[in-house]
Amino acid sequence: MISVVILGAGNVATHLFKGFRKADNVSVIQWFNRSLSSISSYKNEVDITDDLSKLKDADIYILAISDDAISNLSSQLPFENKLVVHTSGSVSVYDIDMKHKRGVLYPLQTFSKEANLDFKNVPICIETIDKKSYPLLKEVALSTGSPTKKVNSDQRRVLHLAAVFVNNFTNQLYRIGHEITESEGAEFDVLKPLILETAKKIQDISPYMAQTGPAKRNDKKTLKKHLKLLDNNTQHKAIYELLTASIQQTHGRKKL
Amino acid sequence: MISVVILGAGNVATHLFKGFRKADNVSVIQWFNRSLSSISSYKNEVDITDDLSKLKDADIYILAISDDAISNLSSQLPFENKLVVHTSGSVSVYDIDMKHKRGVLYPLQTFSKEANLDFKNVPICIETIDKKSYPLLKEVALSTGSPTKKVNSDQRRVLHLAAVFVNNFTNQLYRIGHEITESEGAEFDVLKPLILETAKKIQDISPYMAQTGPAKRNDKKTLKKHLKLLDNNTQHKAIYELLTASIQQTHGRKKL
Ligand SMILES: NC(=O)c1ccc[n+]([C@@H]2O[C@H](COP(=O)([O-])OP(=O)(O)OC[C@H]3O[C@@H](n4cnc5c(N)ncnc54)[C@H](OP(=O)(O)O)[C@@H]3O)[C@@H](O)[C@H]2O)c1
Ligand SMILES: NC(=O)c1ccc[n+]([C@@H]2O[C@H](COP(=O)([O-])OP(=O)(O)OC[C@H]3O[C@@H](n4cnc5c(N)ncnc54)[C@H](OP(=O)(O)O)[C@@H]3O)[C@@H](O)[C@H]2O)c1
Repeated sequence: MISVVILGAGNVATHLFKGFRKADNVSVIQWFNRSLSSISSYKNEVDITDDLSKLKDADIYILAISDDAISNLSSQLPFENKLVVHTSGSVSVYDIDMKHKRGVLYPLQTFSKEANLDFKNVPICIETIDKKSYPLLKEVALSTGSPTKKVNSDQRRVLHLAAVFVNNFTNQLYRIGHEITESEGAEFDVLKPLILETAKKIQDISPYMAQTGPAKRNDKKTLKKHLKLLDNNTQHKAIYELLTASIQQTHGRKKL
Repeated sequence: MISVVILGAGNVATHLFKGFRKADNVSVIQWFNRSLSSISSYKNEVDITDDLSKLKDADIYILAISDDAISNLSSQLPFENKLVVHTSGSVSVYDIDMKHKRGVLYPLQTFSKEANLDFKNVPICIETIDKKSYPLLKEVALSTGSPTKKVNSDQRRVLHLAAVFVNNFTNQLYRIGHEITESEGAEFDVLKPLILETAKKIQDISPYMAQTGPAKRNDKKTLKKHLKLLDNNTQHKAIYELLTASIQQTHGRKKL
């Protein structure tokens, strides 16, 4: 049985706790948060603490805390030579204090506390500095039911960057779709099946193959009509122009 | 039984033909295309023709042809005062020759001939110039199993524009994600569950509520790291900056 201590009580920590609850080879023996209130409701299930000096001996310590807090908290841990990992896509593994064995367990998914999550759909990218810690970290990640992926620091960094494009930026395009439709009293809901289909399509074919539409076809008439409709919003217009140019660059058309 | 003639043999025409095949109150009595080859495999199921002068008498004629061809083909039709509709999101209903009763049956989805499609997931936006034609067009649209939506021309136009944002532009963000990950030998596949989750999330909550990430949090450290990673690609960098600014405008943060 692998023993785990979770530090932090946010979105990721909470989902990890629930994920490990179902694992039969991993046991969360303690849950730390600087403020007890957010974990007190779990006190009958697991030992909870807000006192670093009371941390139990465990095989692995998972810092699922804000990016900026990782370095400092790791150096405050009152032990050394244990496997300590963070869960961030963008923080360096070297931000963890060098007195520890260091690693990263980066779950590539969008978490929010309320939503239920199936770890089957959460690829976990793992990275360790010393090779010997890798199998342990992998076993811990797999125990949630997640697919795991070995990555190096550069790969994790670009995966996080790409995640910003396909998650945050995509969501902002949905938002713009929402604004545009509502501005004419049309319903955003009508777009929802298209949004889902767009995401489903690239599960099987590449985004390159999946592309369609006026930019790819270089349909000048439609492009012109659309730009005119966007005349009252400089920022939406700039996004339209830039993404059209990007599509045309990808598909070998001339720029707008 | 409502009789329909389909004109055109592309993505939309083919899916409509298959959709109506299952309907019990609508019958496709003829299928026209300027070149017979693409519909000849259906000749045992339906009367096919490439000769406008042989068009049969029907309740409704659906021009599922390229945007640019709609106006011209509609004026060549050898009859008048019949309901003639096109299937385009961006072409004006007035592009149809005024000798006809005119309307639009715009299926708001991305079609490709190969992929199977459930019309349940294809909202059909309908519009007619004369009110009397509306119930007929609605019945035809509903017969495929689609949800239907009454729209006016302005609403259809913005829905089409919004569709470009949430479909073509989103797909280009997936493409950029693909390029970025492959540039470091990371796998695009790892992002696929996140892509699906991002689309699923806004089926229930608004894109505004669904937003997360460094732009919304105004996490300057991460934003800076990402821009540095994009230093070798001016266009990706410009997209990053513009969409970050757009998110910050939506969520009341200062610009980059
Ligand atoms: N959310 C996601 O979708 C996602 C996905 C993949 C990876 N990650 C990464 O996972 C980590 C946690 O993210 P999250 O979304 O779970 O964050 P979150 O919900 O904002 O929770 C942050 C946690 O960090 C704790 N914390 C903040 N500053 C601290 C400090 N100075 N000392 C000790 N604890 C501190 C907070 O404690 P309090 O409860 O006392 O405030 C809270 O428990 C981050 O590295 C993030 O980049 C997040
Ligand atoms: N594809 C989508 O996802 C989608 C979604 C919603 C709406 N629409 C709209 O639906 C319509 C059809 O799109 P599509 O994707 O099905 O197009 P498509 O696959 O490119 O097929 C175009 C069809 O139009 C015919 N055509 C082209 N020029 C013609 C002309 N001058 N005279 C007569 N026929 C002509 C073609 O005939 P040949 O076979 O002889 O070339 C072909 O059958 C367009 O208005 C489009 O905006 C498309």
